[in-house]
Amino acid sequence: MSILLACSFDADDWALWRPALEAALPGERFVTQADDGPREAIDVAIVANPPPGSLAGLPRLALIQSLWAGVDRLLDDTSLPAGVPIARMVDPAMNAAMAETALWAVLSLHRGFFRYQALQREARWAPHGQRRADELSVAVLGLGEMGATAARRIAAMGYRVIGWSRNPRAVDGIEVRAGFGALPDVLGAADVVINLLPLTDATRGLFNAARFALMRPRAGFVNLARGAHVVEADLLAALETGRIGHAVLDVFRREPLPHGHAFWAHPHVTVLPHAAAQTDPRSAAEVAAANVRALRIGAALSHLVDRSRGY
Amino acid sequence: MSILLACSFDADDWALWRPALEAALPGERFVTQADDGPREAIDVAIVANPPPGSLAGLPRLALIQSLWAGVDRLLDDTSLPAGVPIARMVDPAMNAAMAETALWAVLSLHRGFFRYQALQREARWAPHGQRRADELSVAVLGLGEMGATAARRIAAMGYRVIGWSRNPRAVDGIEVRAGFGALPDVLGAADVVINLLPLTDATRGLFNAARFALMRPRAGFVNLARGAHVVEADLLAALETGRIGHAVLDVFRREPLPHGHAFWAHPHVTVLPHAAAQTDPRSAAEVAAANVRALRIGAALSHLVDRSRGY
Repeated sequence: MSILLACSFDADDWALWRPALEAALPGERFVTQADDGPREAIDVAIVANPPPGSLAGLPRLALIQSLWAGVDRLLDDTSLPAGVPIARMVDPAMNAAMAETALWAVLSLHRGFFRYQALQREARWAPHGQRRADELSVAVLGLGEMGATAARRIAAMGYRVIGWSRNPRAVDGIEVRAGFGALPDVLGAADVVINLLPLTDATRGLFNAARFALMRPRAGFVNLARGAHVVEADLLAALETGRIGHAVLDVFRREPLPHGHAFWAHPHVTVLPHAAAQTDPRSAAEVAAANVRALRIGAALSHLVDRSRGY
Repeated sequence: MSILLACSFDADDWALWRPALEAALPGERFVTQADDGPREAIDVAIVANPPPGSLAGLPRLALIQSLWAGVDRLLDDTSLPAGVPIARMVDPAMNAAMAETALWAVLSLHRGFFRYQALQREARWAPHGQRRADELSVAVLGLGEMGATAARRIAAMGYRVIGWSRNPRAVDGIEVRAGFGALPDVLGAADVVINLLPLTDATRGLFNAARFALMRPRAGFVNLARGAHVVEADLLAALETGRIGHAVLDVFRREPLPHGHAFWAHPHVTVLPHAAAQTDPRSAAEVAAANVRALRIGAALSHLVDRSRGY
């Protein structure tokens, strides 16, 4: 097959991804957007932040395979060919990395490690009290592969975990609530709220003043999904009043987070540079290759996106 | 029974511990060192950093129950009555808390979260690469209740865990090496070394220049046991050369860590104020009470210290 790599990669990324994809798909013909030559023969597009319009004019295109888990930016491209199946990346290494970051944030908030790190900068020795894990409730919003993995690993450390998703789902060993009607209860019951939702019209701006007001005083808020889930001014206001005690933010409205943004120097905000979970080229190339092989033999494709749902 | 509470507690500690102990041991008579009255009737001493000499002159004393896990300071008291059984605290809530701190340190070192927090203070957005948990080896030194719990929870997150103890022990699902002869191999195989050993003559000053030289370049070092395990000047030198990439230290030669100590402001040292795991008065009072009840009916006492071994 002829595979277009429509990826906004720098040289370092290409050096990781191209060998991984070539090793996972031996014998296939790869072309990039920089290559000359006919686009008519292209069967598959493997994409990572493709420039808008880069998937137009591909008459044989039969699969768009994203290398990223989130496809909200991809779906914003109005020139995306209709009717071509789109597959998200579901990378087991990425799921594990996300669960690591989520658990690190929970442990840091629960045990006050951010506070100890701030005290260290003042050379102050001030141990504070300690609660048991089973005295804290953690809400995990979004129960896709990443949310479910995070929820299970946090529960395994003894925390009470409440999962929430728009539509009912079952996650082994986790109490799950579904639908927007249940969201106020979930937010009000949690000491730590972790956002792992997909970005859709229904979830954009979900974390606004009204939602923060539902949370427990001094709750921890952890955003590992998309910056556009959060109304940043409302989060700053909630930090100001103490409604939110501390926020761990990996994603932002504008990335990189602009110099001078209030989050950078905020004493109760931990900023990560969109690094909570990176796709691992080794395992992700195998996942993409499995879909290409399925296409070749006419088998079912995995991890397909519902365009109307947005994820 | 008549129970002496020989505890160097401040008012806050007394307010937590005394009700917990009285609830766990209804009907017993409690006295403190401040109380007047005959010491001849005392059967049990429940101790937490008792002032030296406070357990002398108790002719009926049949059990010394420590509220702390570490008994090294207690055993240093040369006036400790010979032949009276000493029990350590083995508090399940404390074991869990220690495992939380150990896992938090491993996640922070593995994923570079300390580095991201330093970058945040410079408002720098600089994602770095990501390794899978199974690409890191974590050595847990000391496989008592706390070390074994920490080792199991770290392994459950996918890390390769190597346990080490002076004497052979089995921990489910963990590769265990035993004896000082095996220590160089263990130190040389680990990306992160966690110290959870008891402090004894054999382990005092264990982490010196020679041992740091055996570790991998840029290894993480996590001391959650006792400050006297570490030769602090040698650790500073190992941080200087980059042999140790980052240290997480909960315990120190002098506590509170003195103002002006090089650890406070070191960019590659995270200082915790001896807060990695606190005994939980609720569960620990139950553990102490179980030993008092065992004494009353002549049953076997739990968690007894071998004075010659030192733990």
